[in-house]
Amino acid sequence: MTTGPLGQGLAAAVGMAVAEAHLAARFNRPGHPVVDHRTYVFASDGDLMEGLSAEACALAGHLGLGKLIVLYDDNRISLSGSTSLCFSEDIDQRFTACGWQVIPVRNGNDTEAVDQAIAEAQKEAERPTLIRLRTTIGFGAPKKQNTSAAHGAPLGADELKAAKEKLGWPANPPFFVPEEVLRFFRNAGASGAKKQLLWKESFHRYASAYPEAAAEFERMMKGELPSGWEKGLPVYGPETKAVATRKTSEAVLQVLGASVPELAGGAADLNPSTFSWLKGMGDLQKPGDPPAEREGACGGEWGPGGRNIHFGVREHAMGAIAGGMAMHGGILPFTATFFTFADYMRPAIRLAALMGLHVIYIFTHDSIGVGEDGPTHQPVEQLMSLRVIPNLSVIRPADANETVEAWRVAVENKTGPTALIFTRQNLPVADRSTVGPAEGLRKGGYVFWESGSGDPEVVLIGTGSELAIAAAAGKMLAGDGIRVRVVSLPSWDLFDRQPKSYRDQVLPPDIPARVACEAGVRLGWEHYTGLAGAIVGIDRFGASAPYQTIYEKFGVTAEAVAAQAKRLLGR
Amino acid sequence: MTTGPLGQGLAAAVGMAVAEAHLAARFNRPGHPVVDHRTYVFASDGDLMEGLSAEACALAGHLGLGKLIVLYDDNRISLSGSTSLCFSEDIDQRFTACGWQVIPVRNGNDTEAVDQAIAEAQKEAERPTLIRLRTTIGFGAPKKQNTSAAHGAPLGADELKAAKEKLGWPANPPFFVPEEVLRFFRNAGASGAKKQLLWKESFHRYASAYPEAAAEFERMMKGELPSGWEKGLPVYGPETKAVATRKTSEAVLQVLGASVPELAGGAADLNPSTFSWLKGMGDLQKPGDPPAEREGACGGEWGPGGRNIHFGVREHAMGAIAGGMAMHGGILPFTATFFTFADYMRPAIRLAALMGLHVIYIFTHDSIGVGEDGPTHQPVEQLMSLRVIPNLSVIRPADANETVEAWRVAVENKTGPTALIFTRQNLPVADRSTVGPAEGLRKGGYVFWESGSGDPEVVLIGTGSELAIAAAAGKMLAGDGIRVRVVSLPSWDLFDRQPKSYRDQVLPPDIPARVACEAGVRLGWEHYTGLAGAIVGIDRFGASAPYQTIYEKFGVTAEAVAAQAKRLLGR
Repeated sequence: MTTGPLGQGLAAAVGMAVAEAHLAARFNRPGHPVVDHRTYVFASDGDLMEGLSAEACALAGHLGLGKLIVLYDDNRISLSGSTSLCFSEDIDQRFTACGWQVIPVRNGNDTEAVDQAIAEAQKEAERPTLIRLRTTIGFGAPKKQNTSAAHGAPLGADELKAAKEKLGWPANPPFFVPEEVLRFFRNAGASGAKKQLLWKESFHRYASAYPEAAAEFERMMKGELPSGWEKGLPVYGPETKAVATRKTSEAVLQVLGASVPELAGGAADLNPSTFSWLKGMGDLQKPGDPPAEREGACGGEWGPGGRNIHFGVREHAMGAIAGGMAMHGGILPFTATFFTFADYMRPAIRLAALMGLHVIYIFTHDSIGVGEDGPTHQPVEQLMSLRVIPNLSVIRPADANETVEAWRVAVENKTGPTALIFTRQNLPVADRSTVGPAEGLRKGGYVFWESGSGDPEVVLIGTGSELAIAAAAGKMLAGDGIRVRVVSLPSWDLFDRQPKSYRDQVLPPDIPARVACEAGVRLGWEHYTGLAGAIVGIDRFGASAPYQTIYEKFGVTAEAVAAQAKRLLGR
Repeated sequence: MTTGPLGQGLAAAVGMAVAEAHLAARFNRPGHPVVDHRTYVFASDGDLMEGLSAEACALAGHLGLGKLIVLYDDNRISLSGSTSLCFSEDIDQRFTACGWQVIPVRNGNDTEAVDQAIAEAQKEAERPTLIRLRTTIGFGAPKKQNTSAAHGAPLGADELKAAKEKLGWPANPPFFVPEEVLRFFRNAGASGAKKQLLWKESFHRYASAYPEAAAEFERMMKGELPSGWEKGLPVYGPETKAVATRKTSEAVLQVLGASVPELAGGAADLNPSTFSWLKGMGDLQKPGDPPAEREGACGGEWGPGGRNIHFGVREHAMGAIAGGMAMHGGILPFTATFFTFADYMRPAIRLAALMGLHVIYIFTHDSIGVGEDGPTHQPVEQLMSLRVIPNLSVIRPADANETVEAWRVAVENKTGPTALIFTRQNLPVADRSTVGPAEGLRKGGYVFWESGSGDPEVVLIGTGSELAIAAAAGKMLAGDGIRVRVVSLPSWDLFDRQPKSYRDQVLPPDIPARVACEAGVRLGWEHYTGLAGAIVGIDRFGASAPYQTIYEKFGVTAEAVAAQAKRLLGR
């Protein structure tokens, strides 16, 4: 694959190489290498300047991805000119430091030397390889070669003509392809077809010898869920004690880990906080014995077949690598970090949404509910900033049963990534015999509770931890004789995709008195409240204190919601 | 400074060291080192895993920041356990590759060895120094030392007691401070005061010898703008040809560069596209002769006193370094990249907003107007995703004169960062004799045009390149005898800060028929249109084509705006 924009391709390629190593470890059998390919990357100076590539390549070295081969186009010209203005590191040394094999090629136009370097790279099994090709940008263009003019714009008619003259090519036809090149490319089709046929034959032999593994491999590569995958998902009765949704997510993840074998992923150094481990399902590491010091290992196999990936404090690469794994296929990747650090992953999330990749992002510690860690760790704008990304599903469940449903939706949503937003703090588990069923989450929003018969006068809307606040406000208002409806709205994108009839049923257009409550910025909520409603939210950064104190001080309370409702009703 | 979250502090420290080197070059005189300090950082394993730190440290090495000293707490334990799970690079080699001096200290608890290492670091003038201290996390805690239990949680009473016993400290008082430590810290105040006094005296001598430089230095450090800084800002008459706002920004920047000497900054390898150079005002580089190959240099001085910073393809570090420069003081930093890459800088932008730093972010290529580069380079959700960040001012001017005003506001807004959003494509320059004055931008929004006497029936709202579309729709509707108002709304945060009376004057509450037009996601616009209005926007990723074609295909046209207005009015 080629790279761009800005290191995303290189990091995704690391993900593809991870996927290859992982699936090979799980499916190959002696004499049956059904998963066995290299991942090649063309990378530029700009890619290597990006921190994203530093993160991804460090992890590639740690994991010993011997089948990853990066051809680095070392032309020393970037969009704005010479790399001497800003880029002076010793790339060979930098990659060696990260556990890579480095093969410099003095003349990148010497195809035999390049061929030789690739052959050498292919021999290396334990380290990824960087082939540094010293090249000239715009080679052959007499005036523009070795300048940024050859970086992003066409050469232009005159320079093209001069270049052809210099290279001894005919001026016509304008798009001239030498016979030798044509033959080489035409042959690629035939030789590729032959390789595919050979693989199919070898897979047929594999399927005869290992029918179950072959069927499983085919299912995983197709991205089809195993039958019965939902069995065993927990249901939480009203007796359940208050529990953080991150904690429920952990329980769900253990069930899914057992029933959905393609699920693999991990956290950016936050497993003990995000609870995103697959316990006992192996640590994805390079082959070999585990080191003596391995606090934090998840248990089970230690090697490429492990399903827990330790991404390190590298959120951005985590996102991009997960995308690459999804592109490879055969794996349903998940990632985990604190919600405030979704900002670090944003470019990778955007690309996954753009490419329609099936990736699941776990984000915990989702609001001022984080408490004492303070404003750097308290998301306020992150929810809305994810909701505006096209084709990203964002789900913020309100209790344990909504959390189960959220995971179900995320596993089933194949057409794009899903962000699951969980709390650090405990939340009450709603008694579903007295409120709407948690399955309502699948439609994005549903009627959670109503005060009684008759059309409601006011609708209260809550998401995640604030649903309980909205519900408490509902009880208060009902106590004052006001007919009230409480709506749970965990996912805007799912809700907006419902037919108008359903949306109007949940949020009747003839009830303009609507109060939304969410521990985040208010901008955006007018989408549901309009200008006639009210929004209880937080238009500033957070603060460091026990979370109950912050909610109180910031006025995100049932009392505030009830007061706004009364104001709207003129009571 | 200490680091966190996640490499931001380390990158900001690089910015502080850049600021020191830059101001020293500009203000120091022989025998008068008025700017002369080192920048010390405590960094963790996690900081060094972050790509942000790789970017910032690569640039620090390139710039030869000899006064930057990073103490790396190499304890090999991170939040989730042993770093052996994910972090195996050779840090000494990695930093050497980036042009750093590396001093390993085998025992980080050996204060004399640490002292010696710092003394050695202080002797180095040309390279930043990494002092790698091999340490034990939770040193002295018998059960928890060298485990992640000592990372983020208190030791607890029992372990604390055991640790004190092991260290031979008394159990009481609970917060025991050894006499020796107390004396050392108490002395720090006195010795600091003495150093400050000495500096003041030396500055006094400097001021006698160089009164103008001293006054300028004091003004810059206070963050006060020079008198007359606005003189020379261009005014564009109706005869001006259509011009991209990025191009007008370039013209404004040259004027401001001359009148505001503290302005310094640059692009992430995009000067020829963002037009963000200060021409002839020097390239910020390490001391010494420029290299032979330096295509892209901005001209003038080559050295630490240059005001153009070549950040390389390192958007995230660019943002964090700019923040550090603002924290240092004496500089008004600006950055530049394509708007879609604002995503890469987001964590740094958030921190600047949280800390109230005066930084200016230039973002060009702001919509599908980018054209052929396609969806990866076409922002659709970025505008709204920046608008939700508290204390960040976001301004998207609609023509050349609004661009001048936008820059004026950004230079004057000291209480937080400002994002200036510019087009790639040319925009018509409004004839201000027939529409509202561009100064209206200072209030965030203003009445741009009205069809005639009488209260309007419908209000059309546009920002940036879509103001012209809204205005064209206005003309169409007026032609059909509809009374219409067109509002320019370049900055939501500035507008929302105006008194209600002004906001109601621009957007009269009794006119619910409002149509907003913006080449970006629609979610959020209900803030102004309510549920009774209409929004012409783009709820999907972009496409690759000439920009006029994309506008047409995506239905962001004057015809669409006019049609929505008529629908609302029932015509």
